[in-house]
Amino acid sequence: MGIFSELHSPADVKALDDSQLAELADEIREVLVEKVSATGGHLGPNLGVVELTLALHRVFESPHDPFIFDTSHQSYVHKMLTGRLDRFDTLRQKGGLSGYTSRAESEHDWTESSHASSSLSYADGLAKGLQLNGLESRNVVAVVGDGALTGGMCWEALNNIAEANRNVVIVVNDNGRSYSPTIGGFAKNLSTIRMQHGYDELMEHGKRRLQQLGWVGRRAFEALAAFKEGVKSQLIPTEMFADLGLKYVGPISGHDLSALIEAFEYAQDYDGPIIVHAVTEKGHGFAPAVNNLADQMHSTGSIDPVTGTPKKSSKPGWTKVFSDELVDLGHRRDDIVAITAAMAGPTGLQAFADEFPRRFFDVGIAEAHALTSAAGLALSGRHPVVALYSTFLNRGFDQLLMDVGLLKLPVTLVLDRSGVTGTDGASHNGVWDLAIASIVPGIKIAAPRDGERLRQQFAEAVEITDGPSVVRFPKGELPETIDAEMTTADGVDILSYGEGATSVLFISVGAMAPDALAAAEALADKDIAVTVVDPQWVFPVADSLIEMARDHDLVVVAEDGIIRGGIGSAVGEALAAAGVDKPLRQLAFPHFFPLHASRSELLHDVHLDAESMRERIENWVGELAQPRGE
Amino acid sequence: MGIFSELHSPADVKALDDSQLAELADEIREVLVEKVSATGGHLGPNLGVVELTLALHRVFESPHDPFIFDTSHQSYVHKMLTGRLDRFDTLRQKGGLSGYTSRAESEHDWTESSHASSSLSYADGLAKGLQLNGLESRNVVAVVGDGALTGGMCWEALNNIAEANRNVVIVVNDNGRSYSPTIGGFAKNLSTIRMQHGYDELMEHGKRRLQQLGWVGRRAFEALAAFKEGVKSQLIPTEMFADLGLKYVGPISGHDLSALIEAFEYAQDYDGPIIVHAVTEKGHGFAPAVNNLADQMHSTGSIDPVTGTPKKSSKPGWTKVFSDELVDLGHRRDDIVAITAAMAGPTGLQAFADEFPRRFFDVGIAEAHALTSAAGLALSGRHPVVALYSTFLNRGFDQLLMDVGLLKLPVTLVLDRSGVTGTDGASHNGVWDLAIASIVPGIKIAAPRDGERLRQQFAEAVEITDGPSVVRFPKGELPETIDAEMTTADGVDILSYGEGATSVLFISVGAMAPDALAAAEALADKDIAVTVVDPQWVFPVADSLIEMARDHDLVVVAEDGIIRGGIGSAVGEALAAAGVDKPLRQLAFPHFFPLHASRSELLHDVHLDAESMRERIENWVGELAQPRGE
Repeated sequence: MGIFSELHSPADVKALDDSQLAELADEIREVLVEKVSATGGHLGPNLGVVELTLALHRVFESPHDPFIFDTSHQSYVHKMLTGRLDRFDTLRQKGGLSGYTSRAESEHDWTESSHASSSLSYADGLAKGLQLNGLESRNVVAVVGDGALTGGMCWEALNNIAEANRNVVIVVNDNGRSYSPTIGGFAKNLSTIRMQHGYDELMEHGKRRLQQLGWVGRRAFEALAAFKEGVKSQLIPTEMFADLGLKYVGPISGHDLSALIEAFEYAQDYDGPIIVHAVTEKGHGFAPAVNNLADQMHSTGSIDPVTGTPKKSSKPGWTKVFSDELVDLGHRRDDIVAITAAMAGPTGLQAFADEFPRRFFDVGIAEAHALTSAAGLALSGRHPVVALYSTFLNRGFDQLLMDVGLLKLPVTLVLDRSGVTGTDGASHNGVWDLAIASIVPGIKIAAPRDGERLRQQFAEAVEITDGPSVVRFPKGELPETIDAEMTTADGVDILSYGEGATSVLFISVGAMAPDALAAAEALADKDIAVTVVDPQWVFPVADSLIEMARDHDLVVVAEDGIIRGGIGSAVGEALAAAGVDKPLRQLAFPHFFPLHASRSELLHDVHLDAESMRERIENWVGELAQPRGE
Repeated sequence: MGIFSELHSPADVKALDDSQLAELADEIREVLVEKVSATGGHLGPNLGVVELTLALHRVFESPHDPFIFDTSHQSYVHKMLTGRLDRFDTLRQKGGLSGYTSRAESEHDWTESSHASSSLSYADGLAKGLQLNGLESRNVVAVVGDGALTGGMCWEALNNIAEANRNVVIVVNDNGRSYSPTIGGFAKNLSTIRMQHGYDELMEHGKRRLQQLGWVGRRAFEALAAFKEGVKSQLIPTEMFADLGLKYVGPISGHDLSALIEAFEYAQDYDGPIIVHAVTEKGHGFAPAVNNLADQMHSTGSIDPVTGTPKKSSKPGWTKVFSDELVDLGHRRDDIVAITAAMAGPTGLQAFADEFPRRFFDVGIAEAHALTSAAGLALSGRHPVVALYSTFLNRGFDQLLMDVGLLKLPVTLVLDRSGVTGTDGASHNGVWDLAIASIVPGIKIAAPRDGERLRQQFAEAVEITDGPSVVRFPKGELPETIDAEMTTADGVDILSYGEGATSVLFISVGAMAPDALAAAEALADKDIAVTVVDPQWVFPVADSLIEMARDHDLVVVAEDGIIRGGIGSAVGEALAAAGVDKPLRQLAFPHFFPLHASRSELLHDVHLDAESMRERIENWVGELAQPRGE
């Protein structure tokens, strides 16, 4: 680590000469591959922004000029250049470096969320504030991916940014996955051609290229201007951005340091908002990433640093079960259509897309549109299945409520990565879905506890015709199948009975079942009789739960969602409405934003592991036995 | 009513000759003014779309071709032409005609929500579905206002619509309020000029006009293409829409029947998505509306049908109190900035905007951007006050959670029209805010019960520096001031004590206080001792409420928000967490979507009026006295 060893702050980047800068880029790539191979993380995106980030720190003055990274998983290089290189062994580990920007880590980090398309709004607000503070000469730099530009927030922000003459530098990090090396070179070529020739000649050239590229290539170009038809705008988006009142520079090769520096220097001097369009290659410089056509190692577990092979073979998970079921269902029912918000792979929709391309719709990073266009499809007589990561449902809450729920339309939401997900940190945990989805009148929510139940409840969900349904399941591997002792008429599975002096009705939500059973077993030794039940459909609250509550001394609800407004809270409402005044206790995620840690570490920290649950229930039972302090 | 008397369906509109059609337009305007003057409603917008709606029904085949009206308050003419003329005396009244499209009313209505910018997403979904159904020759017609185009959903939808070759006809109803008669004429002029001259000449003409129009005029033009700079795109948005891959026709005078019919016929025959840009005048043909520069009678109460004068003088309301306080605060504190999502007038921000124009930001119909740009402003050291209608907070939930809450930024949300609002129907009631806002970790929520408390709690909110705060209040006139008997150290106001054998802790949220007190007084006669308290800051739940609960036999929480996840539910969670197992009952809005009716009718229907609350509490106390059915 020749250069790196002498690098302590962005100021040192400015002091390097050109050859040292190129050397540093190589060093950074080496470190990225070495470190992220060991810890896992967002390898591809960061390999793609090495030169871009170097050039930004070379030209602008962070934190004097605030840098905002959209979905900040591409901030690793920024972290290395701002004094955090030595902590990269701890990436995404408990107590270690966050996988996203983090204000606690550095004054160079301004935001923390990993939800896409928000950077331009932050930048607009910051620029407004700096202007009011008399600091309008500073530049606010937003780095935003081509994908994020398909999100409506970006357009709301551009509408505002374009209105005024504030110094917002929008760096479009265009790493559309079709930018294979050829295309990356082509992009640079474009820039040259643009300077040398007229638009028309370029247009012709571009059209020919588009025809050669096929669907995947077209997608990338489409994303380039965030809109998908109109060859002109996609190759040279100046027309479009100029229409918005925004100065546009590009496209520039995102791996050409001197071109980037030149463009950023121009942007720095330019008075007003400006877009710099850099074409980068995801995974650049690491063949296993570049050659991984699925996602160019967008996010990996730990891998071999030479071959890129995963160190741990992953077992079949929840996603695969859903994916297979959906394809089967697609064969049985013509009316089933599937919608993704730019995540066909991770949500398991790709198999359906391959089998039924006409009935599959990728709407971009656009959860709001995903839900309301699903409503439109439902109005036409289709049954849409919208597959999202749980945390991203937040972006479509109003649409689920007003556009789907109000019209009682049959739309099935499949929420992957629900509950505690772990290492991705606060904004990736799917702890909000139960609270917000259950607000929607008429909705039905299932939380399967194993693969068998996922199959069954998904099949039930797509039979619901009088309103929206939700099936939510966690990240990761499938647990062992847990069979029920018996099932009530309204579908509550009784998983185990206990014997003892005090009786506890233990309502377990979804994937909490194994730990709930373990806790119950341990409580049997304490003369506490625990009945563990899994309602399967957790909302609305089943009547039989209320009836069972009458026969127990204490009701406990365990869920890996936020305590405020969760299923425990809904059970409380149902008990109150029925006049069943039994003591109720919630085992749920506390009302705070979790730091990054593994799922099991997090569950332990918030006392939702089996042993903690046992202890808490035992204490509660003990307190009940005490005379009340009245 | 010459023509109208023979009109029973859209087919009859097609049978009319041109002179009859013009006559019908006049009749419709007459009816609109007569009926809406009596009932109140969205007069201005509907007067603006008389010819546009006639032309749509003349050309397209509803419901064969689905019509989707964005924020469907401009669907009155559509209703009249689809068999609902005779019900207009009942507009917005309980059991009467909805002020929005309603599927229960007619097969010609497809959607119901009044939240803006969703029409294009519905249309995209419907067109996708029709294509799958082999009905791709049908046209899906979306009527969307220029204002709604500033919302991100529209851009997400356009991105999808532009991708494929489906028959989506996007009618931009451009009624920007600066389109005074002169400008309306100018807009028609534009169309002529465009056909006769080149772009450049037009551009020069347009620039001159823009310079003459000043701020308001510029705004309208800005909205025209939904983006605010770049003269070219605003006058002739063909460049921009063409860049999106969308065919564009216009601008056309929205009051020229033959021009509209011609354009719609072109659109009908056109194979693929197309935008028809019609420039309309809000309030057209009714001088009191046209001349009302504030909002051109966007929405009125009952008025004199000749002069347009309101029949009832409105007393000072909640909004005015907030508006005055904000201006005062603005004088005292330089760091205060204010943000509206296109509703400066109705939310009371206009006075602040007039006094502190540099510290006021209208972001368009863009709640998501409102929240995240507020976060950016907060990062720059400002304290933003974001004023929204309660129901529109739904659109910014993720941004409140992830962009404001996660960073613990001092942003104050002021939610007007919270709780039950009444005649606007399901999607305008502000019954969701308490449930969703309280999900955000670290948030603090105040619900003032009167004007005095609004002043106080707003002042407290803007002093909070460690996270977001919310102040929510209802629509309408201010209630009498209610003084507290005493206040606990943590701010819970005790409003009244009672005496009796059974004791009830009655927690009243915000504007429920007068009815809560009335109910409590009536219960005194029944030997029930009610302590009525107002926590003022209703979330997080005050510790003193938990302590007081210990000393009462029953806890009741009254709120005009949705029962699922509301404050009653939060009190339940807090009691459980503290191990205080007192019976709890919720008086809240039931878990359903309300139909339109007056606020008092709705509160009565859902048993939240004083008399119903008394009766329910009395029953609950009676049940507590019974032996439990165990």
